Amino acid sequence: MNRILNVHLLPELADPHELAGHTSVVIDVLRASTTITFALVMGAERIIPCLTVPEARQLAFDRPGALLGGERGGEKLPGFDFGNSPAEYSSDRVSGKTIVFTTTNGTKAMTRCMGASRVLIGALVNSAAVGAAVSRDERVDLVCAGTDDQLTAEDALTAGAIVDRMLIGQGAWTLNDAAHLCRSAWLAEVGADGDRQRVTAAFARSLGGRNLVKIGMSADLEIAAELDCFDLVPALDRTTWEIRG
Amino acid sequence: MNRILNVHLLPELADPHELAGHTSVVIDVLRASTTITFALVMGAERIIPCLTVPEARQLAFDRPGALLGGERGGEKLPGFDFGNSPAEYSSDRVSGKTIVFTTTNGTKAMTRCMGASRVLIGALVNSAAVGAAVSRDERVDLVCAGTDDQLTAEDALTAGAIVDRMLIGQGAWTLNDAAHLCRSAWLAEVGADGDRQRVTAAFARSLGGRNLVKIGMSADLEIAAELDCFDLVPALDRTTWEIRG
Repeated sequence: MNRILNVHLLPELADPHELAGHTSVVIDVLRASTTITFALVMGAERIIPCLTVPEARQLAFDRPGALLGGERGGEKLPGFDFGNSPAEYSSDRVSGKTIVFTTTNGTKAMTRCMGASRVLIGALVNSAAVGAAVSRDERVDLVCAGTDDQLTAEDALTAGAIVDRMLIGQGAWTLNDAAHLCRSAWLAEVGADGDRQRVTAAFARSLGGRNLVKIGMSADLEIAAELDCFDLVPALDRTTWEIRG
Repeated sequence: MNRILNVHLLPELADPHELAGHTSVVIDVLRASTTITFALVMGAERIIPCLTVPEARQLAFDRPGALLGGERGGEKLPGFDFGNSPAEYSSDRVSGKTIVFTTTNGTKAMTRCMGASRVLIGALVNSAAVGAAVSRDERVDLVCAGTDDQLTAEDALTAGAIVDRMLIGQGAWTLNDAAHLCRSAWLAEVGADGDRQRVTAAFARSLGGRNLVKIGMSADLEIAAELDCFDLVPALDRTTWEIRG
């Protein structure tokens, strides 16, 4: 059996027709994927991802009780309940809630996967759980969100970590070249054990990480760098456009 | 001084406006970059790269004495003097000659760099020479050709080798995320010394390498995998559209 495991370093590099009917995993590790996972672990009922701020405000207005989360330029928006820092999404604030969440790069990547049979959200905090969730699939596409159409090392390394986990104990996968590259880079920069300090250092060198350090949010790098602290795999329902755990 | 060293994993990922006025290095290691370097080392006077087969035939027809080289699907074309195997370009056949050379992916990448101040051709056989040739530049863009719009590990690893060479003894370069990834993958899969057997094995796993193995041309992998056997750096003159040593 020839099972296919692909990494796409940007959404534009993934052909929507090829993703159709298979499992896609969207990776935007700094910070949308990590934050969405945190919010659902902390008890949020659903996350509704959206591209623009006006759309987010409208969606929240239409749903009494919904909370607003997300960022522009890394910063929380006026009138929003949350920014995009995983630590903000504590259980007392999110439990049972609907969160309308605006994130440009992550939402673009999800849109690219509209034809997939399943769309999962992958990060380092749930990399082993993601690997387990796709272990019986015939084809898996890891779609890195990147930042403003530029590929980012933090997403590539996270993809590499998930690939590395899937190669252990799941039998044969045929990797595309980007999957090989990401896994090699992950092993070179971090190592198979995923040491948190080394991940944090690698993130700090990455485009997304440097942007966070610039705005004083380097604490989020360490939060996003903790491997496998959660078993939850967020999944996007393409019909309702809701993400649930 | 903040000198910039970028890798672009596909021509489409390089913004022509950002390349303008700086040095670009086109990498299509299996096999156009390697073959062009071989042909010039063996004494060819100039290589004229072109996109299509009819264009190549016309250009050669217009230049009495010119030879025709290149491939489609890895194979030599009817009526052509050479395919795309570096070993074919021996000094007795190419010395003093003009070679019209058709290669789709490599030519596309060169076209992307039209506004650059210099366009060099990079491979593993001349990676140290390429590194030396750009050592005083303010900004260098390594543009990987890929194959039919897919990124390829063989070009990414070659870019990683050139980045690694440039970081040794050239002072500070600021790398983009793709440059970090390629260098890490190169160090993980091959190592800084560039052992030829390990390069050959890495090439054999890559998209371009697998395609060559399929058509019985695996000997070319080993030829392309020999680091720094030549000091020559081919350069494209954008006015005459000729490559010379």
